[in-house]
Amino acid sequence: MDARPHPPRPLLLGAPAGPPRADAERNHALILAAARRLLEGRGVDGLTMDLVAAEAGVGKGTVFRRFGTRTGLMLALVNDIETDFQRRFMSGPPPLGPGAPATDRLVAFGRERIAMLELQGDLLRAAEDRPDERYASAPRAASALHLHILLNQAGYDGDTPVLVFTLLASLDATLVLYENRSQNVTMERVANAWEDLVRRVTAPRAS
Amino acid sequence: MDARPHPPRPLLLGAPAGPPRADAERNHALILAAARRLLEGRGVDGLTMDLVAAEAGVGKGTVFRRFGTRTGLMLALVNDIETDFQRRFMSGPPPLGPGAPATDRLVAFGRERIAMLELQGDLLRAAEDRPDERYASAPRAASALHLHILLNQAGYDGDTPVLVFTLLASLDATLVLYENRSQNVTMERVANAWEDLVRRVTAPRAS
Repeated sequence: MDARPHPPRPLLLGAPAGPPRADAERNHALILAAARRLLEGRGVDGLTMDLVAAEAGVGKGTVFRRFGTRTGLMLALVNDIETDFQRRFMSGPPPLGPGAPATDRLVAFGRERIAMLELQGDLLRAAEDRPDERYASAPRAASALHLHILLNQAGYDGDTPVLVFTLLASLDATLVLYENRSQNVTMERVANAWEDLVRRVTAPRAS
Repeated sequence: MDARPHPPRPLLLGAPAGPPRADAERNHALILAAARRLLEGRGVDGLTMDLVAAEAGVGKGTVFRRFGTRTGLMLALVNDIETDFQRRFMSGPPPLGPGAPATDRLVAFGRERIAMLELQGDLLRAAEDRPDERYASAPRAASALHLHILLNQAGYDGDTPVLVFTLLASLDATLVLYENRSQNVTMERVANAWEDLVRRVTAPRAS
């Protein structure tokens, strides 16, 4: 887990001065890394303040002080996961990051996202349950802009914004987990279908 | 509005014997037709028991007796709209119904659905808000089966079930109304993009 330069800090009016900032940031990163391990091992049920504190090797009070509530911790973890993904598709190694052909980067985007849904989908699905944020969230806007640019670089000559909505909808955690868990569609099939769709829509027209 | 052979009847334990069955069915159809006109004219806010009774020319008590609650009326109206759509794509005139090439029927399916969302989308979006039913509803299952068959008839050789999930997701009321109202994408653009996508995925491969 990367240390972030400016981790969000809960607003605690009148709170006593905390430990020195370097310790606080180290604890912040430790707690988020521990929460991510628990999420990936046990699903969203593993994200209790007790388990996270024990896994991070800090006191429970420290977790509450940094994140306020379990919901606060979960939102911070979603933010951490999405920020990490964004960093990887914007400036990480190819084919997800720059340096690969646009179509390969589109393929890698979906494959990486589907791999995330396999590990962290329960949490990302919970984030989608807030209808006002479902399509308007900052991570979704970043992904939409990224796909828009890549589709145009790949020579797509249709209505790019509408296709981006369709492509992102096909990667919604709620939908993909439904396919996988209720319809017995393996994550590998979802990923292969993403690649197939991207290659078809960016292929030169036959006529 | 077509008269349906077996309209759902609310379960009223111990209710007094109602009017003769023919009258009851006529009222049922009158009320649903009135509710649909109000929905299309005023949106979901027009669906009050008072307005529906007045528009249908029946007493308010009749509306309550037939549908129980406003929610009951809205669910019956969703059912009526979806049943009507299903009848049209399964046995209505081409190109939506049988008799046109499979690709043209796929195109017509999306265009008709998007036209429905323009008129009735507020109600259909409300129906999607029940997460347990979002992907598992009977109308969605009928649409999925229909698209599956048409894609195969059109010669699609990829993973049809996964593509069907993607195509239906692109027609979700919640998504399309967001595109249209929050992102200034016209319904015509959404419909044209649907056609473009369907024609690309069913086109013979270039290689």
